Amino acid sequence: MIDLYEGILTTRAIRRYTDEPVTVEEIRKCLRAAQQAPSGGNSQPWQYLVITDPDVKRKVAEIYRRSYRRWETAQLASLPEFRTDADREAFMRSLRSSRYLAEHLDEAAALVAFLVPDVDLAPSDADGRVDIGPIYASVYPAVQNFCLAARALGIGTVLTTVYWSEMDQLRRVLDVPERYVIAALVPMGRPRGAFGVAPRRPAETVTHWNRFGNREP
Amino acid sequence: MIDLYEGILTTRAIRRYTDEPVTVEEIRKCLRAAQQAPSGGNSQPWQYLVITDPDVKRKVAEIYRRSYRRWETAQLASLPEFRTDADREAFMRSLRSSRYLAEHLDEAAALVAFLVPDVDLAPSDADGRVDIGPIYASVYPAVQNFCLAARALGIGTVLTTVYWSEMDQLRRVLDVPERYVIAALVPMGRPRGAFGVAPRRPAETVTHWNRFGNREP
Repeated sequence: MIDLYEGILTTRAIRRYTDEPVTVEEIRKCLRAAQQAPSGGNSQPWQYLVITDPDVKRKVAEIYRRSYRRWETAQLASLPEFRTDADREAFMRSLRSSRYLAEHLDEAAALVAFLVPDVDLAPSDADGRVDIGPIYASVYPAVQNFCLAARALGIGTVLTTVYWSEMDQLRRVLDVPERYVIAALVPMGRPRGAFGVAPRRPAETVTHWNRFGNREP
Repeated sequence: MIDLYEGILTTRAIRRYTDEPVTVEEIRKCLRAAQQAPSGGNSQPWQYLVITDPDVKRKVAEIYRRSYRRWETAQLASLPEFRTDADREAFMRSLRSSRYLAEHLDEAAALVAFLVPDVDLAPSDADGRVDIGPIYASVYPAVQNFCLAARALGIGTVLTTVYWSEMDQLRRVLDVPERYVIAALVPMGRPRGAFGVAPRRPAETVTHWNRFGNREP
């Protein structure tokens, strides 16, 4: 049993897995938790596609690797300004970990895709605008619930979107109709390495009180 | 102490609050949990604006009420098909609860706005496309962490986006620069009523295995 607050703090991206299995019952337990996430008007617009078949995993991994290379190139071409060498090292460590995942994606026990209706097909308002944010507000909380529930079961996960540039190909190998967007792909497996509090800037440095720019409560 | 898995299942939208206070330290504890959420390349692009000042709350509540009326009108004009009377009643109950919130928003102990850089200003790819999903993938998990952490402290929350149609006005009363989108507004307070498992369709009815349409693992 893990405490709720403690569990949230210590859920971090896990990208290296042992070859121990994850059971269908465990995956279903995580999906039940995802299902309890909120959505606009309780519309529950998302669906799940769970990939455990080695052949399908390999095909997805191939697409993922291709899009990862593109993503890494873009990341390295526009590096943020690092304030310290430690910051740079932390960034490069995270990049190496992401690269490792891209090269070993099919070794994850399962890959879970989260599908939502394509925003381009969403109803627009009187001015022709589509409210895109609210649609994604009705899927990413479910993804986070899924990752936290996995943590409760001792299973590691990571929220990925780097396949986005190859969305069409990914839909195709999974038979996903074009009317859906794959909003996230979550690999899961027993962690090599440990759960723990991931490096983040302190919340106070990005918190405003009562009006933007006011740093004191 | 609440178990992580149990806490996820029993976190539901809470829209009616007592007039008991929520302390700055409690809010900060929830923000620390939000801060641990994942983001693309650990970019941590979101910021928080916490509203506790009664005058600012009232101004926000006024904008919220206006956008809520617009949202409710749209909801009632395009009702989903209800399979049972119980489904219809559940929907109407949820609507009444949302209306209550819109009419009493300034009674929440605090309102927490989550800001992210405006997607229209995000870098586009070679084809001129902006990958919008990934940007929202780096804020809504933080919102969910926030709501779950509040649950751990016995504090009720609800993820709202109905103000979206009045985004400009909302930014203005909060001094938020135009380069930010307010991705979510989360009222919080001590719950009247209880936490519990909210009604959802069973996860199995929206789960596919290995390819879209395959319902068996």
